[in-house]
Amino acid sequence: MQDFIFHNPVKIYFGKGQASHVAEEAAACEGPVLLVYGGGSIKRNGAYDDVIRALAAAGKQVVELAGVTPNPRLDKVLEGVALAKEHGVGLILAVGGGSAIDCAKFVALGAGIGSDEDLWHDYIESGRPAPEGLIPLGVVLTTAATGSEMGDSAVVTNTAIARKMGYTSFPLMPRFSVLDPSYLTTLGRDQTNYGFVDMFCHVCEQYLSLPSDDNLSDELAEAIMRHILRSWRACLADPSDYTARSNAMWDSTMALNRIISRGKETDWVTHGIEHGISAVHPEVAHGAGLAVVHPHWMKYVYRATPEATGRFARFACTVWGVDPTGRTEAEMAAEGIERYSDFLARMGCPRTLAEIGVPADDAHLDELAAHHDAMGGSYQHVGTAEAREILADCVEPVAF
Amino acid sequence: MQDFIFHNPVKIYFGKGQASHVAEEAAACEGPVLLVYGGGSIKRNGAYDDVIRALAAAGKQVVELAGVTPNPRLDKVLEGVALAKEHGVGLILAVGGGSAIDCAKFVALGAGIGSDEDLWHDYIESGRPAPEGLIPLGVVLTTAATGSEMGDSAVVTNTAIARKMGYTSFPLMPRFSVLDPSYLTTLGRDQTNYGFVDMFCHVCEQYLSLPSDDNLSDELAEAIMRHILRSWRACLADPSDYTARSNAMWDSTMALNRIISRGKETDWVTHGIEHGISAVHPEVAHGAGLAVVHPHWMKYVYRATPEATGRFARFACTVWGVDPTGRTEAEMAAEGIERYSDFLARMGCPRTLAEIGVPADDAHLDELAAHHDAMGGSYQHVGTAEAREILADCVEPVAF
Repeated sequence: MQDFIFHNPVKIYFGKGQASHVAEEAAACEGPVLLVYGGGSIKRNGAYDDVIRALAAAGKQVVELAGVTPNPRLDKVLEGVALAKEHGVGLILAVGGGSAIDCAKFVALGAGIGSDEDLWHDYIESGRPAPEGLIPLGVVLTTAATGSEMGDSAVVTNTAIARKMGYTSFPLMPRFSVLDPSYLTTLGRDQTNYGFVDMFCHVCEQYLSLPSDDNLSDELAEAIMRHILRSWRACLADPSDYTARSNAMWDSTMALNRIISRGKETDWVTHGIEHGISAVHPEVAHGAGLAVVHPHWMKYVYRATPEATGRFARFACTVWGVDPTGRTEAEMAAEGIERYSDFLARMGCPRTLAEIGVPADDAHLDELAAHHDAMGGSYQHVGTAEAREILADCVEPVAF
Repeated sequence: MQDFIFHNPVKIYFGKGQASHVAEEAAACEGPVLLVYGGGSIKRNGAYDDVIRALAAAGKQVVELAGVTPNPRLDKVLEGVALAKEHGVGLILAVGGGSAIDCAKFVALGAGIGSDEDLWHDYIESGRPAPEGLIPLGVVLTTAATGSEMGDSAVVTNTAIARKMGYTSFPLMPRFSVLDPSYLTTLGRDQTNYGFVDMFCHVCEQYLSLPSDDNLSDELAEAIMRHILRSWRACLADPSDYTARSNAMWDSTMALNRIISRGKETDWVTHGIEHGISAVHPEVAHGAGLAVVHPHWMKYVYRATPEATGRFARFACTVWGVDPTGRTEAEMAAEGIERYSDFLARMGCPRTLAEIGVPADDAHLDELAAHHDAMGGSYQHVGTAEAREILADCVEPVAF
C-alpha cells in the first residue's frame, strides 16, 4: 500500500427531506446565495422548490445562474464569477448533478483568484493549486453519478479550443452536500444508465491500477462494484423504487470520495479519452462516451503485464462471477470484460462510436485522440497514439 | 437505509515516517503542546523520538502527561486538565493507542467546559454534547484497535464508583492522526490479538443490526471483516511484516470511522457488557474481555427474530465461508458463531471468564452485570438481566 493522506471534511445530509438543512447552512454564511443549476429538471423533481423554501427560511437573497449545460462550459463559469463578485455572494449552492456542481466549483475558484490571474491558463491548464478562502460551496444533489458532491475535482470544457479538462484541488471541496434519493425517481432510463456507467468506471479506475499487494481498498472497491450492479438493475426495473435510488446515490458518492483510492496509483485514462470525445462533441453525454470507451480500454490494457492480467482476472471472478476453474488468467480476464460489455448492452447503453453519433473516419479519430485529456496510466501509459488505437477499436463492441 | 449525516473531517497521514507532519500541524497552533501517553512502549517503538523531533522542529514547548493506563482513568484525565489549563496548552497530542487518545479527548473536553461544570456528571454521565472550540487534538497512533483516531467517541473509567462509560460528541474529533504502521511491528502477540478482536467486534456491532434491507454499508462491512481475518493471520505469522501491519492499521480505522454505520441502527451491547468487566477488573485488557463476551452475545441474539437469524446466516456464509447447501439459516448461523470462536482459540485469545481471571460465582456475575454500560440493542434489547445471562454463559466457550 502506498503512503497516503486522507482528508474529506464534506458534511453529508442523506435522506428524504434533508434539503431543509440548507437553511441552517446558508444562515451560517454572510451575504446572498448564488444558485447554480442546469435546465428545468430541478423544477420538476422538487429540488428547486425545497431549496428556495430553505433559503427563504434563512432570510437569504438569492442570485441565480441557470442554464448550466451537461459538460459545463467555461463561458458559463465566467458568467457566474461575474455574478458572484457583483452581488458579494457568501455561499454558492449547486442544485443538480455533476455539471452544476463542477460549474459551481469553478465559479468559487474564479471568484477567489487575483484579478490579474486567468482561471483557464493559470489554474485549470497549469494544475496550480487553488487558494484557500474561496466562497463556501454547498450542493443539493439530483443525480447519482459523478461523486463531485464529496470531492475536490471538477471538469470544464473550453469550447473556444474544444478542450475538456479535469482539475483537482482541496479548496474545491464542498462544505456540505444534501443527498435526497427521492430527487432521482424522475430520472429517465438514459440518465440513470449514464450515472451508473460513470460511478462504475470511477471504481474501476482506482481498482484496476497498481499496486497489486493485499490491501483493503481493493476489497472495498469490489464490494462497491457488486453493489452498483445490483442497484443498477433495481433502478431500471422500478425507477420509483426509493431503496434502489438511495443505494445508487450512496454508491456513487462512495465510488469517488477518496476512500477506495487510498494506497492506489489510480488510472484515469478512460475518463481522459472520453473527455476528448465530449470536448469535440459536447452533445454526447459523459456516461455515454464512457460506456463506449471503457471496455475497449480494458481490452487494450489487460495483457500489458502479468500483474495487469492477474488483476483483470480477479475483477472477472469477484465482480462478474466468472468461474476460474481450468482457465488461464487471460481467459478469465477476457470473459470478465465481455460480460461487462454484454451487461452494458442489456441495460441499454451504447457500445460503439456510431451509437453515440461520433464518426470514426481516420481524420476524426485523430482529432478525438488529440483532444484526449492525458491523465497518465498505471499498468500501461496511454498517450495520444495509444488513445487513438483504443478509439479505433470502438467501432465495434469489444470482442476477443 | 435509515437517513444519516456523515461528517468526518479528521486528516489522516498514513505511512512510514509520517510523524514528521506533526511539525506543521503543531506550528499551526498557539502555545505549548500537551503530550499524552501511557507507559514506555512509545519510547521502544520510536514514536516518542519522532514526535519530540517534530515538535522541536516546530519550536514547541512540550508538557507531558505520562502514565495513562489501559482502560484510562478519570483521575488521570483530571490531572491532564489541570496541566492544560496551567500551561495554556494549544494542542493536545496523544501518542499511543486508544487509551492515550481517549484520555486526551477527555482532557480537551475537561479543559473546555465551564469552571462550575463537572466533567463526569455534567457530560460523561449525562451524555450532554461537548461545547465547540475545544483545544485541538492530534494523534500519533501506535496500535491498531479502537478506531478512536478517526472518531468522536471515547471511553473512561471512574474508579471511585467502578464505572466505565463511553461518550460521543463531535467536538472530540481529532484534527489530525498520524498512522505509521512501523510502530506496530514491536507489538506482542496478546496486544496484536486484542486489537484485532476490538476492530472485528466494531464491524460486527454495526453489521449485526437492523435494518436488513439492501445497503452498501453491509457489503463494505463484510469486505472489512474478511480483510481483518486475513490481516490478523498475517500479523501473527510475521509480526515484522510491514504490509500486514499497514493492513491492520487501516482496517482498524475503517472499522470505526462512521463509514459502515451509515443507514444502520448499530448495536454496542458487547462493548457495554465488556465495560462492566473492565470497570470491575481494570487489569483485564478490553480486547480480552471482548473475545470472551462477543461470541456469547451472538449466541444469545441470533435467534431473537427471523431477521436476526437471516443476518447471522449471511455473516456465517460471507465472512466464515459456511456452506449454505441444505441447511437452515439457524444452522448456518450457529456454525458461523462456532467458527468465530474456534478462530479466536487458534489465534490464542481467551474465550472464558476463567481465562481472563474473572470469577463466575453468582454474586460476581451480578456485580459485572450491574456495571454493564447499557448501550441499547437492535435485534434484541439487552439490559442488566440479559447481560447477566450472557455473562453466565461465558464460563465455557460458546457451544450449541
